Amino acid sequence: MADAGGPVLALTTGEPAGIGPELAVMLAADAAPPARVVVVGDPALLAERAAMLGRKLELVTLAPGDPIPAPRQGLLPVWPVALRAPSHPGVLDVANAGYVLETLDAAVAACHAGHAVGMVTAPLHKGVILDAGHVGFSGHTEYLRDRCGVDEVVMLLATDSALHARTPEWRGGGALRVALATTHLALREVSDAITGPRLARVLRILHADLSRWFGVSAPRIAVCGLNPHAGEGGHLGREELDVIIPVLEALRAEGMALDGPLPADTLFTPRHLDGVDAVLAMYHDQGLPVLKYAGFGRAANITLGLPLVRTSVDHGTALDLAGRGLADPGSLEVAVRLAADMARRGGLA
Amino acid sequence: MADAGGPVLALTTGEPAGIGPELAVMLAADAAPPARVVVVGDPALLAERAAMLGRKLELVTLAPGDPIPAPRQGLLPVWPVALRAPSHPGVLDVANAGYVLETLDAAVAACHAGHAVGMVTAPLHKGVILDAGHVGFSGHTEYLRDRCGVDEVVMLLATDSALHARTPEWRGGGALRVALATTHLALREVSDAITGPRLARVLRILHADLSRWFGVSAPRIAVCGLNPHAGEGGHLGREELDVIIPVLEALRAEGMALDGPLPADTLFTPRHLDGVDAVLAMYHDQGLPVLKYAGFGRAANITLGLPLVRTSVDHGTALDLAGRGLADPGSLEVAVRLAADMARRGGLA
Repeated sequence: MADAGGPVLALTTGEPAGIGPELAVMLAADAAPPARVVVVGDPALLAERAAMLGRKLELVTLAPGDPIPAPRQGLLPVWPVALRAPSHPGVLDVANAGYVLETLDAAVAACHAGHAVGMVTAPLHKGVILDAGHVGFSGHTEYLRDRCGVDEVVMLLATDSALHARTPEWRGGGALRVALATTHLALREVSDAITGPRLARVLRILHADLSRWFGVSAPRIAVCGLNPHAGEGGHLGREELDVIIPVLEALRAEGMALDGPLPADTLFTPRHLDGVDAVLAMYHDQGLPVLKYAGFGRAANITLGLPLVRTSVDHGTALDLAGRGLADPGSLEVAVRLAADMARRGGLA
Repeated sequence: MADAGGPVLALTTGEPAGIGPELAVMLAADAAPPARVVVVGDPALLAERAAMLGRKLELVTLAPGDPIPAPRQGLLPVWPVALRAPSHPGVLDVANAGYVLETLDAAVAACHAGHAVGMVTAPLHKGVILDAGHVGFSGHTEYLRDRCGVDEVVMLLATDSALHARTPEWRGGGALRVALATTHLALREVSDAITGPRLARVLRILHADLSRWFGVSAPRIAVCGLNPHAGEGGHLGREELDVIIPVLEALRAEGMALDGPLPADTLFTPRHLDGVDAVLAMYHDQGLPVLKYAGFGRAANITLGLPLVRTSVDHGTALDLAGRGLADPGSLEVAVRLAADMARRGGLA
């Protein structure tokens, strides 16, 4: 894939009744896409949404392995996967759950075969996939983990890499990378989920992938405490003393540069973020509100720990907006640009 | 107090071995203070710290009720409270715990007597007050609640009101107000602490005090869910369905304008913050990291629900910096300016 046109990225449409298909249309119709993107999805669906939005778009149906043209406005290459049933904007249909999963399988297969270096995913709808009988389905991240045969992955959110241009380095320039030690858990389950082995696995993956995909040679990671004030010496919870600090000490002894555990509301200030390559938050709402605030709608979700590059939009299917041309393609653009940057830095293109 | 010089604010020095005394010195020595501030503390301590920092400062010892001169650079009025023992920067001494509490009592008494409209507090050290035998002491906020004889107070953090000047209104201008439904609890205790009665009390206080102290005639408050994705319809926790939504519905029926419960990482984006007067976060690290990030070191802590204005710096005693002139008076300036603004809008000056 290391040819002149840059890395090839497989873009899955996600839930066909959501905004995913039209975001793919907008990505190619409104400007030249920021990388060589091939949509994995139903060409008729894409044509229909393009017409609905009044966008002019040439859809080029290709097979994995065919040469992918350089990105240009108005052109959208597609590796076709057929819908199981016609899809109407905003109307979920369990019949198409198999379509959504097939696009993911096709994208993974294309990466494994070397036809793409990574994948970018538009949002799927977990509920309709569960309703279709895929018991235990809990989202893209876990599905891709299992499909790629790895034990653990890490969710990292990043603001637009274009923001890096604001300052000599991304650091302190409004751009942020925030990884999560736990993801989609009810708040009352979080404390017990923070175990030493999990933290160590997450930090090892984050450390390795900051080097591999982001070109950071000796990553410095700032780690949040679990409790407010990072437990205030045990007065506000003992997890820092009993679990987090021992893990950080063990990994520091291996040479990792780790700050913390720091109170989250201290860590997310310029003085502490300066020189930090990524933040590890202990749970979803400790880290993501800052990231989304800082990213101003231009953030993307990255799965670390996979043998391929995977980025995603940071929003849902937005069924209420689907088919109306009101969706904001900002996050998809960021996800595509980040995936291309990661592939280049990782030596895949 | 409604004379030409503006509202009088009592500023307590906090822990004498911390940075509080020198922040008071810097506030008056480096520029004209932003309001008529009287320090409640030991004049000899202030003189010593001014000398240590090489600041020239005229300390004017007054009694509560004496006229307070208009603010000007180099002048610091003091209502004297004597240290119990000499205090050395960075060295805690249980002997002075009584001093710290006496300054708070004196400030409250001055407010009750009408000699001040509010108080601004420099940081105290909870541990040394506990060690001195004040069993159950848990901080300024609870101490002032009890001293003022009210049942419940609400912690609100706000970024610098000067930031409001960036846009026609503070909304969307980088300034934020974030209140907390729970404050200093270990994370594993948070979910059970979110009860219907507590939420209703907190929202009533927040609503009333946004009108009273901030001049917002019909406050609009955005409320975070407790769980990630606000529970995702019960898939990630049921507290939104069982506790939060019923409270919001009941209060809406009384006429309150309440958004939510919203996922915290959705709420803290420009689209959702637009038009919102304050955010209610369910717990410390859900709301304060964003606030501190947005405030860039210029945020202050406000106690709502008291019969007086009370603001505070948003940082601790910083024993390691004390006496060295390295402390940043930014948060104290914000706390003083906010207190003065609140007093004016509340008709106290």
